[in-house]
Amino acid sequence: MYIKKSVRVMQGYVPGEQSRERGIVKLNTNENPYPASPLVTKALRSIAVKELRLYPEPTALKLRRRIAEVHGCSVDNVFVGNGSDEILALCTRAFVEDSGSIGFFNPSYSLYPVLAASRNVPTRPVELSGDFGWHMPARYNTSLFFLTHPNAPTGMLYGKSVVRCFCKSIKGVVVLDEAYVDFSKEHCLALALQLKNVIVVRTLSKAHSLAGLRMGYAVGPRELIAALFTLKDSYNTDTIAQHLALAALCDLGHMRGNVRRIRNTRTRLTRLLTERGAFVYPSETNFLWVRPPHLSAKAFYERLRTSKILVRYFEGDRTSDFVRITIGTDAQVDRLISAIDDIGVDGGSASRTRMKSQ
Amino acid sequence: MYIKKSVRVMQGYVPGEQSRERGIVKLNTNENPYPASPLVTKALRSIAVKELRLYPEPTALKLRRRIAEVHGCSVDNVFVGNGSDEILALCTRAFVEDSGSIGFFNPSYSLYPVLAASRNVPTRPVELSGDFGWHMPARYNTSLFFLTHPNAPTGMLYGKSVVRCFCKSIKGVVVLDEAYVDFSKEHCLALALQLKNVIVVRTLSKAHSLAGLRMGYAVGPRELIAALFTLKDSYNTDTIAQHLALAALCDLGHMRGNVRRIRNTRTRLTRLLTERGAFVYPSETNFLWVRPPHLSAKAFYERLRTSKILVRYFEGDRTSDFVRITIGTDAQVDRLISAIDDIGVDGGSASRTRMKSQ
Repeated sequence: MYIKKSVRVMQGYVPGEQSRERGIVKLNTNENPYPASPLVTKALRSIAVKELRLYPEPTALKLRRRIAEVHGCSVDNVFVGNGSDEILALCTRAFVEDSGSIGFFNPSYSLYPVLAASRNVPTRPVELSGDFGWHMPARYNTSLFFLTHPNAPTGMLYGKSVVRCFCKSIKGVVVLDEAYVDFSKEHCLALALQLKNVIVVRTLSKAHSLAGLRMGYAVGPRELIAALFTLKDSYNTDTIAQHLALAALCDLGHMRGNVRRIRNTRTRLTRLLTERGAFVYPSETNFLWVRPPHLSAKAFYERLRTSKILVRYFEGDRTSDFVRITIGTDAQVDRLISAIDDIGVDGGSASRTRMKSQ
Repeated sequence: MYIKKSVRVMQGYVPGEQSRERGIVKLNTNENPYPASPLVTKALRSIAVKELRLYPEPTALKLRRRIAEVHGCSVDNVFVGNGSDEILALCTRAFVEDSGSIGFFNPSYSLYPVLAASRNVPTRPVELSGDFGWHMPARYNTSLFFLTHPNAPTGMLYGKSVVRCFCKSIKGVVVLDEAYVDFSKEHCLALALQLKNVIVVRTLSKAHSLAGLRMGYAVGPRELIAALFTLKDSYNTDTIAQHLALAALCDLGHMRGNVRRIRNTRTRLTRLLTERGAFVYPSETNFLWVRPPHLSAKAFYERLRTSKILVRYFEGDRTSDFVRITIGTDAQVDRLISAIDDIGVDGGSASRTRMKSQ
């Protein structure tokens, strides 16, 4: 009786398993297998606990200045959040009237419907095409649309011009959730500086190897950014995270080196999986969307779990035939492929020849 | 047109000035003048950046276990947030229907009306008595009441029995905001484990000297705590903050030593200010609520600012005759008193004898 009715009936977001089990190969939550820049270590070592007795800089000004520099915009176009998830949640509170609605693709990031439920507004999900391509119905509109770019969990990129046209057609705000864009061949940041209704959200969790830090940022028109500032908690990002994020963003070369390695491994893993009869969608991210051979996706996921390899499986009409596999190191890929070959031998089609990982 | 109407008209919370100016005496945001435990430094030094590539433990389980141990409750009674401010905001979303209301004392923490505005629900402020004592109208009720205990900005403590009776009389949820309670002679944590509608919120920002870390927690009935979990961001607290907070809560002796020093300085500063004609309310916190002698509070605040001493001044009917002064070190108190004596000589009553700080 004390709890808001819409909260009583809602399901919170269920994050992927955060196992710390020894010997596990963790390919389930799209973490980067390589560590962040040495500059981040240096920044961490330079922090004294006595500095922490003071509140953080509430607007993260230094960090926002660096982000503005990276993207060639003004500091007033930049907001920094406690992970990009905080920014997505703030957008639902800033840009949607109680009578409004929230749109997103199905499938895309499974947090969006949870955010809509927490705001107690209806969703307007848009089904992707059968092969997970762009598919927007005529005369579609909504108060706020979360466009995952490239898409998760499919890893697929939509064309820039189709994204631009869509943004122009929407009466509300479009959030381009570019969590994985550093792994992609193109991005849409320019739209956030050209159109009045577009915000691009980025994170340091993936390409910058700092998921543990909780740092994301938004770039957009200053009026929309100002609304996020109005709503945010007074000190939403902490002193250490501000320092470390700044260090990471001062060494983009390190991040790009890691991205290159991951993209190479992505090519290799795609080939190895395809050779084994899996169907792999073209990925512009650090994960693959895979229909496994021989077994159902759920059984495949469970068999890998038994072999101490974690991948992600999502229940649901559009997702239950697939697993999402994070691109790890090449050594992790070897272990994955070896486990898949074992499944192939004793759990798959009897006629299938076991293929060696290479 | 893109921004929610209630957000367009609202004023965000304005935190106290976070100056990093050299030589400034910062007594405006109730920070602890002494550093956190050496165990926190040790924990900070033990963190490797490579750990940060993984997401944090989403429920902060280890830290919550320690908090449960400290308070003699179950881990299901404990929620951890990105500063206690995040928890206060979550409470407004978890426990207030759109048709509900949010209550608090006037004056108390100036964030509460901002949180009500961000939820777009009416406030039901309760005026404290003329001398800032407990004053609750008959038949008062509300969906959610924020009770600052001890009060800020007055520093005053209400009796435990009056708080208990009030909690029992309220149909909604009472959040006992005990941000400053470590500096106080008594606390109300037991109410959160005895009554179905009471949550106690604590922070590591004040007594634990970790304002820069953003760590707060709530203790309460497991149903209410579960509702906060439903609504929270997936990874609302980061890996480093979880480690450091755990270290701090494993050295309560260090915190209590700092609290003892601050309480001693509180006694001394109260005496010095009173001797100079200020009226000082009895404080159970790490700050004093002071009506300055000779000058208006605003002029007093501004004169101190000129002397590089920051205290807090709040505009408003009930607050504009006072300044709130954080208890710093004894050396900072000496500088404050010396500056006040200078004001006394050239800006105050001509007949007043200058008194030396001691």
